Amino acid sequence: MQSRARALEDAGQRVIHMEIGEPDFTAPEPVVEAAVRALREGLTAYTPALGLSALREAIAAHYANRYGVTVPASRIAVTAGASGALLLVLALYVDPGDEILVPDPGYPGYRQFVRAFEGVPRAIDVGAESAFQPTLDSVRQAWGPKTRALLVGSPSNPSGTLLAREELRRIAQFIAEHDGVLIVDEIYQGLVYGEAPSTALGLPGEVVLVNSFSKYFCMTGWRLGWAVLPQPDTRAFENIAQHLFICPSAAAQYAALAAFEPPALEVLEGRRREFERRRDFLVPELRRAGLAVPCTPNGAFYVYADCSALDLDAKRFALGLLERGGVAATPGIDFGLNQTRHYLRFAYTRSMQDLREGAQRIARFCAGA
Amino acid sequence: MQSRARALEDAGQRVIHMEIGEPDFTAPEPVVEAAVRALREGLTAYTPALGLSALREAIAAHYANRYGVTVPASRIAVTAGASGALLLVLALYVDPGDEILVPDPGYPGYRQFVRAFEGVPRAIDVGAESAFQPTLDSVRQAWGPKTRALLVGSPSNPSGTLLAREELRRIAQFIAEHDGVLIVDEIYQGLVYGEAPSTALGLPGEVVLVNSFSKYFCMTGWRLGWAVLPQPDTRAFENIAQHLFICPSAAAQYAALAAFEPPALEVLEGRRREFERRRDFLVPELRRAGLAVPCTPNGAFYVYADCSALDLDAKRFALGLLERGGVAATPGIDFGLNQTRHYLRFAYTRSMQDLREGAQRIARFCAGA
Repeated sequence: MQSRARALEDAGQRVIHMEIGEPDFTAPEPVVEAAVRALREGLTAYTPALGLSALREAIAAHYANRYGVTVPASRIAVTAGASGALLLVLALYVDPGDEILVPDPGYPGYRQFVRAFEGVPRAIDVGAESAFQPTLDSVRQAWGPKTRALLVGSPSNPSGTLLAREELRRIAQFIAEHDGVLIVDEIYQGLVYGEAPSTALGLPGEVVLVNSFSKYFCMTGWRLGWAVLPQPDTRAFENIAQHLFICPSAAAQYAALAAFEPPALEVLEGRRREFERRRDFLVPELRRAGLAVPCTPNGAFYVYADCSALDLDAKRFALGLLERGGVAATPGIDFGLNQTRHYLRFAYTRSMQDLREGAQRIARFCAGA
Repeated sequence: MQSRARALEDAGQRVIHMEIGEPDFTAPEPVVEAAVRALREGLTAYTPALGLSALREAIAAHYANRYGVTVPASRIAVTAGASGALLLVLALYVDPGDEILVPDPGYPGYRQFVRAFEGVPRAIDVGAESAFQPTLDSVRQAWGPKTRALLVGSPSNPSGTLLAREELRRIAQFIAEHDGVLIVDEIYQGLVYGEAPSTALGLPGEVVLVNSFSKYFCMTGWRLGWAVLPQPDTRAFENIAQHLFICPSAAAQYAALAAFEPPALEVLEGRRREFERRRDFLVPELRRAGLAVPCTPNGAFYVYADCSALDLDAKRFALGLLERGGVAATPGIDFGLNQTRHYLRFAYTRSMQDLREGAQRIARFCAGA
């Protein structure tokens, strides 16, 4: 869809981009300047494989300050983006033939990471009735003798919905009883609206968290993230990280130290409120245009919308919306097979001005569909 | 050895570090300033999975300018360090059970990357008689029905020796005839002494190159490298890279554009000459001290030295050298099993002043051994 959008733009047409899973904000200025200082001071050598101690401590302090959860820095591993964290986590936990449960619809990368290490991704169908999130029942039903882990994102991509803490606790308990691993992708952590941000940290059993500086911290191209590991697994994780990555970007790590300081956090909270404003604008606009949004998203920057009242084929709808309507969105089939043919994902990672224009275009296109 | 060295330093002892596989130089100033500009201009978003077009073009131009070999930019993939390149290359080419030939002694990461994708690393013993490099004969002998690829480094770590172009051509021809893949790790490319730098690019068959900005370009903690792929495999590589990494660091990529410009290259050539001076100093000093250096290294920044005239156990020797001599070096067993118990690797990644002090200490220690 992105390359098609680019072709239209090359031909002189203006496209409103609502397909992009990347904030339109760059890193806060104190973060940029911390990177500049590190670069000019030559702090660009290899760092420890698990990252700078100071950064691991800062992340631990962030969990304490913002989420009220205590975690020792020794359990935190800084990685080359959440991608690097997912890769190492799956390298660590997946043996060939292991089944890993992943939500459908869900982030397509999950399946790729599992397959890269010869695991078998097994879909858990998640629908609007459970806010597009697994439930204890669906996990129990899907769990088999070869199942090793559940990998789930909250807030979720593509739906922007959260997995309720109490349900997640029950799931964690079930997985612990079955000697499995619960891997929670919290890369949209902090980008939640109308409720306090939360973490799966502290749930019972073997719980692994994956996180990122890309979304809330607006540091996509910096390629920095982290994992929180069960204490006994940190040594093995360090060993794989050392061999497969050597270390994450040094300058990005020094920059990230500034991301947890009040000046940067103030900027980031302002942006979170801006995302919330955009969501509050976009969801009713989509509904008015005739798209169903069965679950109002309360996190990330996505709206997962059902176009079946207008067209039973969301991919065809998305292509028409792009070529005749001038708005790019992502067809649901990019996220799995479970009813995804009726859905599209709209990202609100563009300015209110663009979103207003996009909403008008969507309304016009839907009126003619 | 590094943590032991640190413990000694914490106790107030001065240690000469000859165990570190990282240049003591940081990126040339024009490279740093290019990064600063990119950061301040907000050029920090995700880039294409295979890297910025301009950087891929610059790398292609570098092959033409310095090595006289033509390669289209479409075959070049920018990666998160040579580590990222190796990871993706092995993810692409290794199926479970495939055998990958690796030199012994050799870079220990090779085996880890192969195992990460359920391949089987199979050692080719390489000794002083072939400059610690595989030969056509040794490859032919090791090649079996399950062999998929040879993975070899030139210049080599730990020996600093090169694989002669004509022998490599014969090996490439043999591998092509057996439908295998030749993966050449050229991460020390450009760091060669007394002869012109070379590349395996242009050899017959399915040849994959792995390269890095860490060594010649002195950009270790920036985590940037590249791979050169056979044209038909670029699409599949891009697909895996997109899923497993999203993209390499954006700022590092903008910085690297400056690394191929004359001001940076001039600095880097000066450093190459400095490494050469260090090698010219260190090799005779080690020999004088009683260590054998069977192959004078002509690349990288390592000397692979045989201590068996002094001690048949190089690990014990290295520990003694560190604790009583105050010099850290890497025991050969870190690089494999083939006669590695008699060898140590000395890195000349410290100043001439440090190396002089180190050589004196080594001589004193050897005299007492």
